Amino acid sequence: MGNRFRHAAIVGKFQAQGMRALLEEIAQFLLSRGLEVSMERATANNTGMAAEYGALTPAEMGQQCDLAVVVGGDGTMLGIARELARHNIPLVGINQGRLGFITDITVAQFREALAPMLDGDYEEEHRSMLGGGVWRDGRPIFESMSLNDVVVSRGATASMVELRIHIGEEFVANMRADGLIIASPTGSTAYALSAGGPILHPGIAGWVLVPIASHTLSNRPIVLPDAAEITVEIVAGRDASANFDMHSLTSLLHGDEVRVQRSAHKVRFLHPRGWSYYATLRRKLRWYEGV
Amino acid sequence: MGNRFRHAAIVGKFQAQGMRALLEEIAQFLLSRGLEVSMERATANNTGMAAEYGALTPAEMGQQCDLAVVVGGDGTMLGIARELARHNIPLVGINQGRLGFITDITVAQFREALAPMLDGDYEEEHRSMLGGGVWRDGRPIFESMSLNDVVVSRGATASMVELRIHIGEEFVANMRADGLIIASPTGSTAYALSAGGPILHPGIAGWVLVPIASHTLSNRPIVLPDAAEITVEIVAGRDASANFDMHSLTSLLHGDEVRVQRSAHKVRFLHPRGWSYYATLRRKLRWYEGV
Amino acid sequence: MGNRFRHAAIVGKFQAQGMRALLEEIAQFLLSRGLEVSMERATANNTGMAAEYGALTPAEMGQQCDLAVVVGGDGTMLGIARELARHNIPLVGINQGRLGFITDITVAQFREALAPMLDGDYEEEHRSMLGGGVWRDGRPIFESMSLNDVVVSRGATASMVELRIHIGEEFVANMRADGLIIASPTGSTAYALSAGGPILHPGIAGWVLVPIASHTLSNRPIVLPDAAEITVEIVAGRDASANFDMHSLTSLLHGDEVRVQRSAHKVRFLHPRGWSYYATLRRKLRWYEGV
Amino acid sequence: MGNRFRHAAIVGKFQAQGMRALLEEIAQFLLSRGLEVSMERATANNTGMAAEYGALTPAEMGQQCDLAVVVGGDGTMLGIARELARHNIPLVGINQGRLGFITDITVAQFREALAPMLDGDYEEEHRSMLGGGVWRDGRPIFESMSLNDVVVSRGATASMVELRIHIGEEFVANMRADGLIIASPTGSTAYALSAGGPILHPGIAGWVLVPIASHTLSNRPIVLPDAAEITVEIVAGRDASANFDMHSLTSLLHGDEVRVQRSAHKVRFLHPRGWSYYATLRRKLRWYEGV
Repeated sequence: MGNRFRHAAIVGKFQAQGMRALLEEIAQFLLSRGLEVSMERATANNTGMAAEYGALTPAEMGQQCDLAVVVGGDGTMLGIARELARHNIPLVGINQGRLGFITDITVAQFREALAPMLDGDYEEEHRSMLGGGVWRDGRPIFESMSLNDVVVSRGATASMVELRIHIGEEFVANMRADGLIIASPTGSTAYALSAGGPILHPGIAGWVLVPIASHTLSNRPIVLPDAAEITVEIVAGRDASANFDMHSLTSLLHGDEVRVQRSAHKVRFLHPRGWSYYATLRRKLRWYEGV
Repeated sequence: MGNRFRHAAIVGKFQAQGMRALLEEIAQFLLSRGLEVSMERATANNTGMAAEYGALTPAEMGQQCDLAVVVGGDGTMLGIARELARHNIPLVGINQGRLGFITDITVAQFREALAPMLDGDYEEEHRSMLGGGVWRDGRPIFESMSLNDVVVSRGATASMVELRIHIGEEFVANMRADGLIIASPTGSTAYALSAGGPILHPGIAGWVLVPIASHTLSNRPIVLPDAAEITVEIVAGRDASANFDMHSLTSLLHGDEVRVQRSAHKVRFLHPRGWSYYATLRRKLRWYEGV
Repeated sequence: MGNRFRHAAIVGKFQAQGMRALLEEIAQFLLSRGLEVSMERATANNTGMAAEYGALTPAEMGQQCDLAVVVGGDGTMLGIARELARHNIPLVGINQGRLGFITDITVAQFREALAPMLDGDYEEEHRSMLGGGVWRDGRPIFESMSLNDVVVSRGATASMVELRIHIGEEFVANMRADGLIIASPTGSTAYALSAGGPILHPGIAGWVLVPIASHTLSNRPIVLPDAAEITVEIVAGRDASANFDMHSLTSLLHGDEVRVQRSAHKVRFLHPRGWSYYATLRRKLRWYEGV
Repeated sequence: MGNRFRHAAIVGKFQAQGMRALLEEIAQFLLSRGLEVSMERATANNTGMAAEYGALTPAEMGQQCDLAVVVGGDGTMLGIARELARHNIPLVGINQGRLGFITDITVAQFREALAPMLDGDYEEEHRSMLGGGVWRDGRPIFESMSLNDVVVSRGATASMVELRIHIGEEFVANMRADGLIIASPTGSTAYALSAGGPILHPGIAGWVLVPIASHTLSNRPIVLPDAAEITVEIVAGRDASANFDMHSLTSLLHGDEVRVQRSAHKVRFLHPRGWSYYATLRRKLRWYEGV
């Protein structure tokens, strides 16, 4: 059976201990399977592997590669997945530590797990992304994409932020709270879960809006279709901020609008055959049968 | 502008005080607008209006009528909507008391609200239904449909019920709890909300599974696509029961399965032009702007 | 250093596998330390150890013994602690399986743990109990004590129960819900926690009232002083029941009152020196530092 | 019947519209009842009433007055109550807008409500306060008192703060969260309630610790005795802050400790005869009987 993939890019959490040796092992394995192998630029530069494997920017990875192998945790995956989404490259995650929600191959078993996947035997899963930005006086002043969530929150010394929420042209609610999380299904098991939100299966075409410490007790999490744009206007509160996964814009002004739509791009995750979304939930959330 | 509807059936919460006079008013108004008017059988028989307006079963209403006017509260609407769903008749709700989530015309304004609707000027909204039943030894022993929810719960003197949940062929989780609610978007603002679930917009093609007092704290509400069948097996616990809106089957045995799929039928609600789902939420959940 | 205790009674979860051999070991150990040893009656009769060790009722244990060694889980401890509370005998828990909230010596280490305790080197902790009953037409028809909680709940096929709560002469609230849990600090980590209640440190002189799936979203758990009697009247709802730990009274009528006061008796738990309430919480609730 | 009080100080939310006329009315009423009347300094200076009524600092109020009449909302009361607590002066609250949790006399009825209170016919209630501060390198760098709560929270752009909690010498837990609220019974119906905490009756000698969006789902609110000091150490997280009611210290460093004990002072609130804590809860939380 022939190779399904031609050219893999490797992205690693280069700060982690022992990462260079591990990346070397993975690269050699991929080469031994007949793939061309490149390194993502920051990974290459920080591990000294650029000379041997090259150093591609995410855009160059998008043009040249047809597979990204990501080595690290969910955070590493989150960062690169967002950058590669527009290039439609599938991602495979190898987790150095405890398995994550979206990185599900252990270092110990990467060879057994990757071998059949390289032959085309895998489960492919698509995750929707939140595209959005901040608008001031009718013009965008910040734009970003999120795989997990967009968070609007109060300043550090403000007692709360007041937000006005619309979906499309329709007024949804005014709320006074520490903040509001707009999470994708992927993000529903991250910060939104801590703030009291439900879990959203990746097959749900929606976002969940989760208020953080809402003044009004009946301001419960609400799941909305992802087809319409959501607008969150800052009505009151000092020094509010908007956060797109890891990118923040602080010092929002009253009247500023945080806008969120479904991105045209989806993240493509590849999992070993037999992978199960529910098994991941059970493991991460410790839904042990016997408890 | 001509009439959009030809023959209306009236369904009323006949136990409520003053209902007969009110139904008479509504019937006269519909007649004055050129519609043929019939009464639902139980309504007719309990108000003594059968002689004048006839007394149709839900099935007969389905064959003869093209509009159902429901007078009462959300409970009245729930009951008849489930029965009419297979006949594809649209429903309009007139609420005698406080406005409900799905009955949004006040008695005081029924004429002004209904007049343009009868001419075809309305908002139509479709709500999905849960079809399901209880299976024992591989055979169905109970079947029903729900607009709100299917609830599996422990017996009155049992300390908990243990449930094993599958979606399609996939194992989701085992849980020990007082029970489990599988709610439609319509049901998400009813019992499921009391038990800690999120609100689901009616445009979401999913159910929310809400555990009731789950032993495992991380057994959080989960929103699943409504495309696959959900199976809940009774693993342990005395005298568990399954509840489909108002219809219950008690004394479930270990090994019994409660199965739920999306019904082929949808409920069609008609609302006055300008009706807003979010305005209903704000009003019912007291999301006042100024609070 | 002499023995602090003179005569131990052993209580065991006699249904558990291998229990007889384990109880024999523990008895021999206690005898070897110079204590007189008796068996609790049900334990003795179900393990065939009555001939050798005698078989005392809880009341006889109260008169003759000055220590109870309980072998099983939290449930076993709960049952016997309630019965011994009026006799003021301290209890030590040996847990056969996973450590519990109130049984904190493992089978593997019972000798090392018990030896210093028998010499008087232990931590003693007192837990308050809920005394109460059900009153009908002004007369008690059921009385019981609880270490964990008193639960008033709806019948299996009723949609909810309506309750009217007083503390002393003061009206607290009316609520419509699946039920209401009145939990002691000991019970706050049991059913009440599943239903959304907070943890109460055993040093708090109060109960927590936790509504189960309350219709009114702002009906939040409330912590009340345990100095005044709490009365819960059944206002509406078919076939409600009252549950005192494991003892239930079903088929409550409208107007029936469930009354709860602080019992005059406290449970005395002995723990190995160095025992920590917070360490128990961290272990049982998996508050791992690294998560 | 003679006057119970001799000299009242008036404190007003001087920014509010129409406040000067209202304060004048209240002052005249108190004078007409034979009391000496002074104004709190900021109130006097901002309303131009200093010339007529004097302008006392909180400390001077403490020396000269035996009653404080506070006109505004819960926020106004919170501010002055904290300052007067060390002087043991009782406070009465007149609420200009919607009644609050601790200001329970309406402007419309202030004469009828105050008249019997001035004669000594009132209910007196004491509320505990949180005394605390921030310690760096073993020395206090900030000290304050709170009637509601002490909040430790993450910086605006930090993803979370990691905290290590001790009570007395005992380690309680490490947690990663947006923050932690330590609330008094008075504060339990404020921010802590929004963050998911229970209600604590003022008679409970404890604090409730409420995590804000805790990473670990089982980090539930916990009620601890107020007899021992609580220490919260900043373990990780950029730019954390500590907030005592309205006073904040930002830019906390790793290793900084926020310490909280029960203050030696209590706030004394006077309420009209017949006042009920539970009626206040029912009104503020909308626990309507009929809902």
